[in-house]
Amino acid sequence: MNMTKHTFHETDEVLLRALQEDIGSGDVTALSLIEDGDMSEAVIIAKGDLVLAGLQFAERVFYLVDDRVAFRALKKEGSRIRKGEKIAKIRGKTGSLLSAERTALNILQRTSGIATLTREYVNAVKGFRVMITDTRKTAPGLRFFDKYAVRTGGGRNHRFGLYDGVLIKDNHIAAAGGIGKAVRRVRSGAHHLLKVEIETGSMSEVRDALKAGADVIMLDNMPEERMKKAVHLIRSTDGPVTIEASGGIDLNNVRRVAGTGVDLISVGALTHSAPAADLSLEFLSR
Amino acid sequence: MNMTKHTFHETDEVLLRALQEDIGSGDVTALSLIEDGDMSEAVIIAKGDLVLAGLQFAERVFYLVDDRVAFRALKKEGSRIRKGEKIAKIRGKTGSLLSAERTALNILQRTSGIATLTREYVNAVKGFRVMITDTRKTAPGLRFFDKYAVRTGGGRNHRFGLYDGVLIKDNHIAAAGGIGKAVRRVRSGAHHLLKVEIETGSMSEVRDALKAGADVIMLDNMPEERMKKAVHLIRSTDGPVTIEASGGIDLNNVRRVAGTGVDLISVGALTHSAPAADLSLEFLSR
Amino acid sequence: MNMTKHTFHETDEVLLRALQEDIGSGDVTALSLIEDGDMSEAVIIAKGDLVLAGLQFAERVFYLVDDRVAFRALKKEGSRIRKGEKIAKIRGKTGSLLSAERTALNILQRTSGIATLTREYVNAVKGFRVMITDTRKTAPGLRFFDKYAVRTGGGRNHRFGLYDGVLIKDNHIAAAGGIGKAVRRVRSGAHHLLKVEIETGSMSEVRDALKAGADVIMLDNMPEERMKKAVHLIRSTDGPVTIEASGGIDLNNVRRVAGTGVDLISVGALTHSAPAADLSLEFLSR
Amino acid sequence: MNMTKHTFHETDEVLLRALQEDIGSGDVTALSLIEDGDMSEAVIIAKGDLVLAGLQFAERVFYLVDDRVAFRALKKEGSRIRKGEKIAKIRGKTGSLLSAERTALNILQRTSGIATLTREYVNAVKGFRVMITDTRKTAPGLRFFDKYAVRTGGGRNHRFGLYDGVLIKDNHIAAAGGIGKAVRRVRSGAHHLLKVEIETGSMSEVRDALKAGADVIMLDNMPEERMKKAVHLIRSTDGPVTIEASGGIDLNNVRRVAGTGVDLISVGALTHSAPAADLSLEFLSR
Amino acid sequence: MNMTKHTFHETDEVLLRALQEDIGSGDVTALSLIEDGDMSEAVIIAKGDLVLAGLQFAERVFYLVDDRVAFRALKKEGSRIRKGEKIAKIRGKTGSLLSAERTALNILQRTSGIATLTREYVNAVKGFRVMITDTRKTAPGLRFFDKYAVRTGGGRNHRFGLYDGVLIKDNHIAAAGGIGKAVRRVRSGAHHLLKVEIETGSMSEVRDALKAGADVIMLDNMPEERMKKAVHLIRSTDGPVTIEASGGIDLNNVRRVAGTGVDLISVGALTHSAPAADLSLEFLSR
Amino acid sequence: MNMTKHTFHETDEVLLRALQEDIGSGDVTALSLIEDGDMSEAVIIAKGDLVLAGLQFAERVFYLVDDRVAFRALKKEGSRIRKGEKIAKIRGKTGSLLSAERTALNILQRTSGIATLTREYVNAVKGFRVMITDTRKTAPGLRFFDKYAVRTGGGRNHRFGLYDGVLIKDNHIAAAGGIGKAVRRVRSGAHHLLKVEIETGSMSEVRDALKAGADVIMLDNMPEERMKKAVHLIRSTDGPVTIEASGGIDLNNVRRVAGTGVDLISVGALTHSAPAADLSLEFLSR
Repeated sequence: MNMTKHTFHETDEVLLRALQEDIGSGDVTALSLIEDGDMSEAVIIAKGDLVLAGLQFAERVFYLVDDRVAFRALKKEGSRIRKGEKIAKIRGKTGSLLSAERTALNILQRTSGIATLTREYVNAVKGFRVMITDTRKTAPGLRFFDKYAVRTGGGRNHRFGLYDGVLIKDNHIAAAGGIGKAVRRVRSGAHHLLKVEIETGSMSEVRDALKAGADVIMLDNMPEERMKKAVHLIRSTDGPVTIEASGGIDLNNVRRVAGTGVDLISVGALTHSAPAADLSLEFLSR
Repeated sequence: MNMTKHTFHETDEVLLRALQEDIGSGDVTALSLIEDGDMSEAVIIAKGDLVLAGLQFAERVFYLVDDRVAFRALKKEGSRIRKGEKIAKIRGKTGSLLSAERTALNILQRTSGIATLTREYVNAVKGFRVMITDTRKTAPGLRFFDKYAVRTGGGRNHRFGLYDGVLIKDNHIAAAGGIGKAVRRVRSGAHHLLKVEIETGSMSEVRDALKAGADVIMLDNMPEERMKKAVHLIRSTDGPVTIEASGGIDLNNVRRVAGTGVDLISVGALTHSAPAADLSLEFLSR
Repeated sequence: MNMTKHTFHETDEVLLRALQEDIGSGDVTALSLIEDGDMSEAVIIAKGDLVLAGLQFAERVFYLVDDRVAFRALKKEGSRIRKGEKIAKIRGKTGSLLSAERTALNILQRTSGIATLTREYVNAVKGFRVMITDTRKTAPGLRFFDKYAVRTGGGRNHRFGLYDGVLIKDNHIAAAGGIGKAVRRVRSGAHHLLKVEIETGSMSEVRDALKAGADVIMLDNMPEERMKKAVHLIRSTDGPVTIEASGGIDLNNVRRVAGTGVDLISVGALTHSAPAADLSLEFLSR
Repeated sequence: MNMTKHTFHETDEVLLRALQEDIGSGDVTALSLIEDGDMSEAVIIAKGDLVLAGLQFAERVFYLVDDRVAFRALKKEGSRIRKGEKIAKIRGKTGSLLSAERTALNILQRTSGIATLTREYVNAVKGFRVMITDTRKTAPGLRFFDKYAVRTGGGRNHRFGLYDGVLIKDNHIAAAGGIGKAVRRVRSGAHHLLKVEIETGSMSEVRDALKAGADVIMLDNMPEERMKKAVHLIRSTDGPVTIEASGGIDLNNVRRVAGTGVDLISVGALTHSAPAADLSLEFLSR
Repeated sequence: MNMTKHTFHETDEVLLRALQEDIGSGDVTALSLIEDGDMSEAVIIAKGDLVLAGLQFAERVFYLVDDRVAFRALKKEGSRIRKGEKIAKIRGKTGSLLSAERTALNILQRTSGIATLTREYVNAVKGFRVMITDTRKTAPGLRFFDKYAVRTGGGRNHRFGLYDGVLIKDNHIAAAGGIGKAVRRVRSGAHHLLKVEIETGSMSEVRDALKAGADVIMLDNMPEERMKKAVHLIRSTDGPVTIEASGGIDLNNVRRVAGTGVDLISVGALTHSAPAADLSLEFLSR
Repeated sequence: MNMTKHTFHETDEVLLRALQEDIGSGDVTALSLIEDGDMSEAVIIAKGDLVLAGLQFAERVFYLVDDRVAFRALKKEGSRIRKGEKIAKIRGKTGSLLSAERTALNILQRTSGIATLTREYVNAVKGFRVMITDTRKTAPGLRFFDKYAVRTGGGRNHRFGLYDGVLIKDNHIAAAGGIGKAVRRVRSGAHHLLKVEIETGSMSEVRDALKAGADVIMLDNMPEERMKKAVHLIRSTDGPVTIEASGGIDLNNVRRVAGTGVDLISVGALTHSAPAADLSLEFLSR
């Protein structure tokens, strides 16, 4: 990612809060033990296989603790890292490295964990013209980081939030009094650069969505056979409707879902249940 | 948890940021479709088994979106919930419910996921006088929530951050020039209400830590046999030293670790790799 | 507007800053002169014709100064107000009314000024199926208010910012190396719920935009005749392309522009050059 | 203006909010289209005649987006710029220039618009020993910028807010129970470095203000003849009373008001109704 | 003080920061020991004689911790309290009272300490028409509270900061190139509602200040005899010049300084060296 | 102190607030009088004897006003300074020096005042193995600074707040239903790295505290004889209990308290009643 001051404005608020909750009124161990002039060198090492994502956030954490820390990336974002490989080399005051260590690893293990899981899904559908996308099921306050990790793992982002995309669900339709009314209202309320996606669960809902002129149709929690039929129906209609599969998709069934011919498969687990990547900071002996 | 204004001051910063990243300049779908006066009733439902934690945070999200939303908890914090059970009932403006839905579920699925995993570890060591504790490996900015979830799941908290507990590691000892020096320095630098914990990996390090007068000794990444020996050595010494096991502990080996006689077992996975609890908000039909 | 706690979160930051810059360390005149128990009643009065917008923001200012002030709206948002008409009645501590007065009027005179000018443009194109929209040319920090005022005046909003709509301009095309490449890149980078708008100035650019598959085509600063030709060309093509006219449009020529058959006319002046509505707060004699 | 870190502290809050409301979760067009290494050069050009004010704020916006952008001012603050003249040259990453463009122009067009209108009023009273001043009728949150623009246009500032100047109006007098009482109270409540100004509408009020010992007398909304009489009366009194004219003054009558002999003429329109200066950012061809 | 929402906006930032630095991640003693439903009653008691100031701030601290705490003032602001007297009665959750206790007392002991010392100075000059004022020598971030305490103790405030009063010192004069030039520049740069005060140390400086037309003359660090001469000289001149004595004034010499006939005596010690008032919170036995 | 970016994050919030409350909308005197290019040199001078503490905070204030100001420390933190000695030399824009002056001195006079008083207490107990510690009785929002000053003066810090140390008082014991219960609850509620201190006033409470297994016992407001007995009793017990004396200790009796054999003596006056150090900024003549 192209990190500019503006991006830092976005990330720093989170990273400073994370540092604050870890360091608080001071790292009592380091403050007592480490002399001010003491310098160290350390490396970030993979303790398991992973896809690297978010190294610039880890770097930023060290910078926010002490801007004289030197940080050198040894691996590229999005690259596959094997257990035991070194990811970055860091040099600076021992006290600064110790104070930043945990916060830097905490963000990096999360973003790399998400990228690693995303890569697995992307690999599982290799050969199909389908995109793996995330959802809005991210950790509170960390959406910017979580969505970046999905992209770095090879996935695509869905809408960022409720403000940059229209997605009409059951309850919207019920409240509006029918699908046609719902689409009309949204077309006149939302600005002209937003498409309209409609969530469907049954074939009759798919037909209604098509009739109402949806730009995108989501097939939510459909069994595989129904999904196939829905894709066939939509593709046989005039106009370029995008199809998204969603709900109950995991590594066991994602390839079969891809086989139904949908354009996008959205997976909540990417951001809410990815295990952390295993990483540690090791100090080089003096 | 006893939620007072002060607690809200702590949590609201995170929850408002989460709402902001989801709602941003406005929920375009709801703003276009839902009429201002439209009211709905909805329930939070478990879509899988789980231990409930953090319902008050979900309630707070609805309150922060619209303080006229009525929220009624149907289950207690820390209780075991079965798939299909209703957890809370919510009534208010349809637009408010839809705007708060995702953010409320995002926090609740995380805290309940952590509590659920913690409960598994606690159950796995049943019968032993040992405590399962968390670590500082939490999601950036969410430590308050993550640590609460661990307690609610039946675990204990380790130190909250670098500021409220002393933990001397290899690098501290190297920088201080020996373990004895390190402990002396920390005793004169830290205030008199903090104990001193020392991380050890070998029997000779355990002996050094005992000699240096550690209050707590951490056995880090030790094989089971060495751990047993270490516990034996420490227990045969004068003085009430607390013993913590740490590193590479999972649900497969946690009971064997407990069997070594340690006082605490700290598990990073509780907060960095707990899968989200499966929850949804369902609107009651009109 | 449906003001909920979330909306206040958005508006209060601006209104509190405005109060802070006006009141600072205290209203020295009122603090010295007005006794704490002194109560007053006052009305907001139109000193010229206007379209009312933002009365809830003015109310909020009084509330933020003193939550015991009673504020009663006498007119509806979006309604036409004649010179001399009373818009709201306010009762509370004299000191609170005096401290809030200027800040409340400052926001109300701006939003009503924008709504009033928007209404003039909307009336000028009556009879045509065309929408008047705003631009991103808003006062720094006040976009939420400015865009609300445009809607209240009868206009439509364009995209809120750079994040919720794609608009490809000359410089993007030059940097991407051609219009086709630019559209392809944006379709694979932006999420699937965003349409793509392309800015054009000549007939050949219009043709290129059509070929590249633009969802929306902006006719920027085109003379009327060329605009007509462009509309004709676009309408004679397959597919539902939306057409926006932009640049150099004022009350003198807006009706002729509407006559060319475009779908939207965007007008920067709505938010950057609308004269303030003339309003004052008058205290009722005791 | 001498911009130091302290000034930036004041301005950055507003400019960062403005950037945030424009860029939000990211400039989707630029992020998709522009490669990270792509560099551009651009100029800010006047599309109409104007008085330049606030170029350092525009520069700051580019800096806040990307601190490696090079910004070179070609014109001086307060100078008269002709249509077509270049005002500044900017070089940096294409993505950074595009992301900062609108926010930079939005502040510059406002401050230059205010300076331009102020200059017209100042020129209109050339030859008289009178000062054109602003009022507190500024855009919410932008008072620092608006007042700077008035000074740059050749005007003078009135008090900055309610905290740095005493101005007694009708309602204060009514609440205090008479003008004499009001002045006594304010002299004992406000600190000894603040003068006391009293608003008057009739000759009898002017006489009362003189008797009460006002340092400054405001003639509010007085017809020209009465204003002349009031000035005559005040000047014939002992002591150096400053006279301010206020209310209903525009470019048509400002010179006649100056002719009455007042010391200051305050004009609300300077900051609430100045049309934006017409400016654009043009990229130099590669 | 008339506490409105606006005042709270000013004070809460400081009080919440104070609570945050005291409570941080939680009151571990109270959280462990006190059951949620446990209620207590407590009183604030004077452990020494004092002048009460700032009780509303202490009340606010309890409110910010828990808005269900009931707080009843038993004494009035500015009143003289004898050792052993009860000042307020508080009832609420035991945990809330314990968490708020120290922060509430910390602010109250400071503001009452300042008021008590101020009262001593005011009493020391009884019989003279002179005012005791504070300076800008306040604790960082606490000026609002410190200046309130001075007023409550019977003193007067000097200017609040560098922005609401003009005070020309040696260095200003040197930089401006003479006192006449300095006054002229300031009269044309500052707005028309600010008076001009000049600091003087010698009789010749007093004469210069008079000639330059100072509104207020400060006699800084002058021996008593010179001060008398200076007062005599200034009083014998035409025009209402205010005289301030400043520098090296303490309780031993303040009455003699008052005897020289000055109008104001400013005392830095009021806010930088007042000993804390002795107060404690005592829980009523159950 | 080792000032890193993280430390500045802690201090800058307070120092910027202090600058804001002093400078506000601008230093009207300096802005009017001082030309932008005017440069000055100045020194911070001791006007009385003092122990220096917090010079880096004063330096930071100048930096926050203008990062081109050059600041050179002439004395070391913690060193004894005689009246008339120069402490630091500062060079930069005259306007910047004048705007920062008061805020820089305000923090420095407070921290040096605290260090000076602390040193007096430390010297008063010379020869005894006892530590002088602070309390939580600090100025609201300034605990970080106040506690740093105590350390610099030669004292030790007590717990920083309610979150990093357990101290059980009367009311806790009453609420818990006995001292044994209280200690048990706190040991199971607080994490394992925190010691438990119990406040006692009588010999029987001391005995209870010993029996309950306190790590630290506070002798609160005990007469000297009782204190001696308590120390004797505690020392004759098995186990390394730390003893703290607290309450009613001043420079007159502190040496006698030290003579009782306690380990720590905590003194509230260090931070709530230390008179400010006498310091001034003097400009070097040109």
